[in-house]
Amino acid sequence: MEKVQVIMGSISDSETMKEATKVLTDFNVKYDVRIVSAHRTPDKLAEFAKATDKNEVAVIIAGAGGAAHLPGMVAANTLVPVIGVPMKTKTLNGVDSLLSIVQMPAGIPVATTAIGTAGAKNAGYLAVQMLAVHDPKIKTQLVTYREELARKVNESERELND
Amino acid sequence: MEKVQVIMGSISDSETMKEATKVLTDFNVKYDVRIVSAHRTPDKLAEFAKATDKNEVAVIIAGAGGAAHLPGMVAANTLVPVIGVPMKTKTLNGVDSLLSIVQMPAGIPVATTAIGTAGAKNAGYLAVQMLAVHDPKIKTQLVTYREELARKVNESERELND
Amino acid sequence: MEKVQVIMGSISDSETMKEATKVLTDFNVKYDVRIVSAHRTPDKLAEFAKATDKNEVAVIIAGAGGAAHLPGMVAANTLVPVIGVPMKTKTLNGVDSLLSIVQMPAGIPVATTAIGTAGAKNAGYLAVQMLAVHDPKIKTQLVTYREELARKVNESERELND
Amino acid sequence: MEKVQVIMGSISDSETMKEATKVLTDFNVKYDVRIVSAHRTPDKLAEFAKATDKNEVAVIIAGAGGAAHLPGMVAANTLVPVIGVPMKTKTLNGVDSLLSIVQMPAGIPVATTAIGTAGAKNAGYLAVQMLAVHDPKIKTQLVTYREELARKVNESERELND
Amino acid sequence: MEKVQVIMGSISDSETMKEATKVLTDFNVKYDVRIVSAHRTPDKLAEFAKATDKNEVAVIIAGAGGAAHLPGMVAANTLVPVIGVPMKTKTLNGVDSLLSIVQMPAGIPVATTAIGTAGAKNAGYLAVQMLAVHDPKIKTQLVTYREELARKVNESERELND
Amino acid sequence: MEKVQVIMGSISDSETMKEATKVLTDFNVKYDVRIVSAHRTPDKLAEFAKATDKNEVAVIIAGAGGAAHLPGMVAANTLVPVIGVPMKTKTLNGVDSLLSIVQMPAGIPVATTAIGTAGAKNAGYLAVQMLAVHDPKIKTQLVTYREELARKVNESERELND
Amino acid sequence: MEKVQVIMGSISDSETMKEATKVLTDFNVKYDVRIVSAHRTPDKLAEFAKATDKNEVAVIIAGAGGAAHLPGMVAANTLVPVIGVPMKTKTLNGVDSLLSIVQMPAGIPVATTAIGTAGAKNAGYLAVQMLAVHDPKIKTQLVTYREELARKVNESERELND
Amino acid sequence: MEKVQVIMGSISDSETMKEATKVLTDFNVKYDVRIVSAHRTPDKLAEFAKATDKNEVAVIIAGAGGAAHLPGMVAANTLVPVIGVPMKTKTLNGVDSLLSIVQMPAGIPVATTAIGTAGAKNAGYLAVQMLAVHDPKIKTQLVTYREELARKVNESERELND
Repeated sequence: MEKVQVIMGSISDSETMKEATKVLTDFNVKYDVRIVSAHRTPDKLAEFAKATDKNEVAVIIAGAGGAAHLPGMVAANTLVPVIGVPMKTKTLNGVDSLLSIVQMPAGIPVATTAIGTAGAKNAGYLAVQMLAVHDPKIKTQLVTYREELARKVNESERELND
Repeated sequence: MEKVQVIMGSISDSETMKEATKVLTDFNVKYDVRIVSAHRTPDKLAEFAKATDKNEVAVIIAGAGGAAHLPGMVAANTLVPVIGVPMKTKTLNGVDSLLSIVQMPAGIPVATTAIGTAGAKNAGYLAVQMLAVHDPKIKTQLVTYREELARKVNESERELND
Repeated sequence: MEKVQVIMGSISDSETMKEATKVLTDFNVKYDVRIVSAHRTPDKLAEFAKATDKNEVAVIIAGAGGAAHLPGMVAANTLVPVIGVPMKTKTLNGVDSLLSIVQMPAGIPVATTAIGTAGAKNAGYLAVQMLAVHDPKIKTQLVTYREELARKVNESERELND
Repeated sequence: MEKVQVIMGSISDSETMKEATKVLTDFNVKYDVRIVSAHRTPDKLAEFAKATDKNEVAVIIAGAGGAAHLPGMVAANTLVPVIGVPMKTKTLNGVDSLLSIVQMPAGIPVATTAIGTAGAKNAGYLAVQMLAVHDPKIKTQLVTYREELARKVNESERELND
Repeated sequence: MEKVQVIMGSISDSETMKEATKVLTDFNVKYDVRIVSAHRTPDKLAEFAKATDKNEVAVIIAGAGGAAHLPGMVAANTLVPVIGVPMKTKTLNGVDSLLSIVQMPAGIPVATTAIGTAGAKNAGYLAVQMLAVHDPKIKTQLVTYREELARKVNESERELND
Repeated sequence: MEKVQVIMGSISDSETMKEATKVLTDFNVKYDVRIVSAHRTPDKLAEFAKATDKNEVAVIIAGAGGAAHLPGMVAANTLVPVIGVPMKTKTLNGVDSLLSIVQMPAGIPVATTAIGTAGAKNAGYLAVQMLAVHDPKIKTQLVTYREELARKVNESERELND
Repeated sequence: MEKVQVIMGSISDSETMKEATKVLTDFNVKYDVRIVSAHRTPDKLAEFAKATDKNEVAVIIAGAGGAAHLPGMVAANTLVPVIGVPMKTKTLNGVDSLLSIVQMPAGIPVATTAIGTAGAKNAGYLAVQMLAVHDPKIKTQLVTYREELARKVNESERELND
Repeated sequence: MEKVQVIMGSISDSETMKEATKVLTDFNVKYDVRIVSAHRTPDKLAEFAKATDKNEVAVIIAGAGGAAHLPGMVAANTLVPVIGVPMKTKTLNGVDSLLSIVQMPAGIPVATTAIGTAGAKNAGYLAVQMLAVHDPKIKTQLVTYREELARKVNESERELND
């Protein structure tokens, strides 16, 4: 069975990145979590990223903030699709993270999601949707999840109007 | 064989989006191109997006500019992964397109690439990388492509120093 | 009697959108409130929006945050004028909401107001002003309201100088 | 018959604002065009704006650039709904115009459209949609217009694929 | 003796604008404070502004936030120099106020200071410096003030190094 | 007779700054023009700025781009009011110049105008308005100038409607 | 032995700048700290900066916020390399400080680091790296420091996975 | 003799980076130029960067655009000081490059200069100033260069006033 590889640049990103792993857990998707810093552990990053090509990794989720080189550098060292999650930052609210992750040059893409927790959650869902293309069971779960999303909207509407 | 579905919001996006289809052609990936406007053809969009779930579509590439609702609305109507390409715009250079595409709410992800032609090219490569996970032939092509990228860097270095 | 249709993308927008409905209540304007999500309930949105053309709806007020496709997608599915209210967001303070709502392509306008509570209030007043064009009673109320605004400015000036 | 009042802050805005009047002409809507500067002709502005309340004006379209006080100051002097069109500017591309127009304080709304020509066009369509609420003939024209928009999208799709 | 006219758009600006009046008090400059809203009391604004030309007003300090039309509209109605102070705003931190105040069109200048309390203080000092050009007593006070500024820097340096 | 001191950081600013001197010429105001660079001639700047306090200079107009320290550093070395004009820049369109000039700390104000040519013109008008406070002849010229501004607006309106 | 000169524009910057001196202390680098304000003590700044050329100063670290002229003005008055640290600001989060420091004109460079505490720390490390070029002992300390950085990443990874 | 290592991410950066090497040539500083892409040649980058620690490299100048990971990744792989030059980009004018380069996390500094050609030139001057700390000959050249800068300012002033 394929797995999703979740990485982050720093332990301080783990609160946000938990939103991604919660989704993977909900969908019974196999994953593991690593802390790999582009700047503090560059060799580990290169080694780790290259290994993903051989390790049944279907997709990588990489969260990083500020200069946020992690997703792009992982993408440069693997052929596995990389989803980048821009962390909210103290000074620039994550605009720095977003631009550093999304503005990749031609040839080395990073699939970027929203800044912060919504982006981390969506990295989880995007990974799940990628797996679902070849996994009807996950696709069925996604159908249920989307129905649930709609159901909750309608429920909140009823509550609001009561 | 699975295909990639390329869509754009307007014929004026076709010059940029050609960068995506050129990549798909280079990798012999099956694709077709549609013009679907979230705002001018909303019913067609919903119908089109829902059909992708049944049509052997492995991934959707959607380019749009300005308010740029196309990628997000396609994503809302399908479970197939959607890659969003923010068009450069005349007034805000694509910052509007980028934020409208990338800042999706939790539950409905859009895999966003860079603004403009680099982003369109990378949408092509990201789609190819997603297919390569289950297609060793495409993976081999990607290995060659990456080697070619590196070779060109080194060649340009030699030229610069001559 | 015509009504104003107030919608929002999520229950989390209701605190802000109450500013709009308070205005409508103050002016004795008929309205109802719906929660309709462009991304989580796209079919409901299309259905709802199309119905407004037949339902004596004079104007729609739609609040949304982040990618904020709701106002634009409602506008794409109806001929009733749509007022869009950009929610303040946690990461980008509503700049994302504003650009996603205001930068609509030619043909499908959204009447955009300020970010957050001031914008929600003004969506209410804008709706009231639109109704007042054909309703002398509402126009008279508006005259009184504007006089009240001026009176309060002068009153606060006296307090400040005491 | 009601009319639409089109104003702009400077003759240099006329090229952009023509996009609004072209729409009004297409829909056979009565309108006239004035140049009124908030800063260079403040008395004329106040006088003009107050007169609109008595002159069968159903909606005002006001284009302005930079500090762009025109739409907001007209709105402060009338109860007629005001649509504000932010001009593209040489230095800040219209971000200044957009924020100066859209960030109005509670009580005095301006219905803001996109920056530049798309916004001017949409100001025309928004005015037309506002009139259509009470004018079935205009509503019919709008239906045709929207069908035409969709037809052109599909036509461009056929051309692209030929 | 000439006076400085301090105005603000809303009582909510008074906390910030006190920084300006404190400076005027420190320099024994005559001033009075008014609340005048460009949007809620446009007639009062025009009347007030025109009166300054006849009332021994040497300079006007106008604080406003958001669309912030007050300084520019006062400037349009008087020949007295106007200093504009952009208020910090809840959503955009005062970027909206700054651009709305500083980006005035050719012919009607507003002397803009920094966003928020530093800007309000500096509006006071700028007014004082303008008066000092023809008032040697104020100039002497300014010399003392600047020496005091320098003295405090040096004192804080000593404290830091202790 | 008092004079206005116009300075700029570089000869490349002279095209823009001519807009300021043209205004001064039109109003028969005495002025001279210097090139003083905060970064390349810091001693000259300090010396020059200090001299203005003794040289019958009523106001200083300083244009600068990018880091744009000139206006602020002149202000730090004189008690004469300083008007700062942010140059449009090649990369950031003058946002850098604007923030570097306007965000001065408490105690040392710079009266900032709009980015680029409009700002340079307005620096001229602001200087003229400051002189007019004590010079009825200049005030009369300003009255005529404002009337001329209004006349041209009305004339352009007639042309547009012909 | 060479020293590092740390300066800041205001005592309010000392909390942030302590991050720089902590690094210097950790590496046993000689340094002293001054408060020098570009705007409140311009003469002291010029004098101080010129003295660094003769005082065995290997590098200057200058922290400043807002208009933030300190690093650039020091750089203009010395040939010693200047590292600029943009302070986070209350209104613009340090975007103003960053642009004012980094956008220096050709000829007078300032080596700019990140906004706020990370930037202050890195100013310390950058100074240390500059010294290490000619000081093998410091270089050895840096090797240890980098190993420690990597070790902590791996340790946090173990903790996260427990 | 020590050398300066100049690198860039792409041949398309060479036009801008020539501004840096011209400075090094003017000062007779030894240097060589490499093209190393963080994304297309990650192994070469790591190898190259590590080698600089042993190769008599006193300082590295690295230019890159967009996501611009090159300077930061070089810095992560060496202890030699790294100067980062943000390239101007087609869509975001270099704001993306600037934030990606300057917002480095604590521990791994990059000395960032201005966007585009001014920044490239200043990278050259900053490198020269770093060498000058231990090279009196270069320091003397720098003194001459600064005098030349001042001389040109004064010369341009004379021309302007003729």
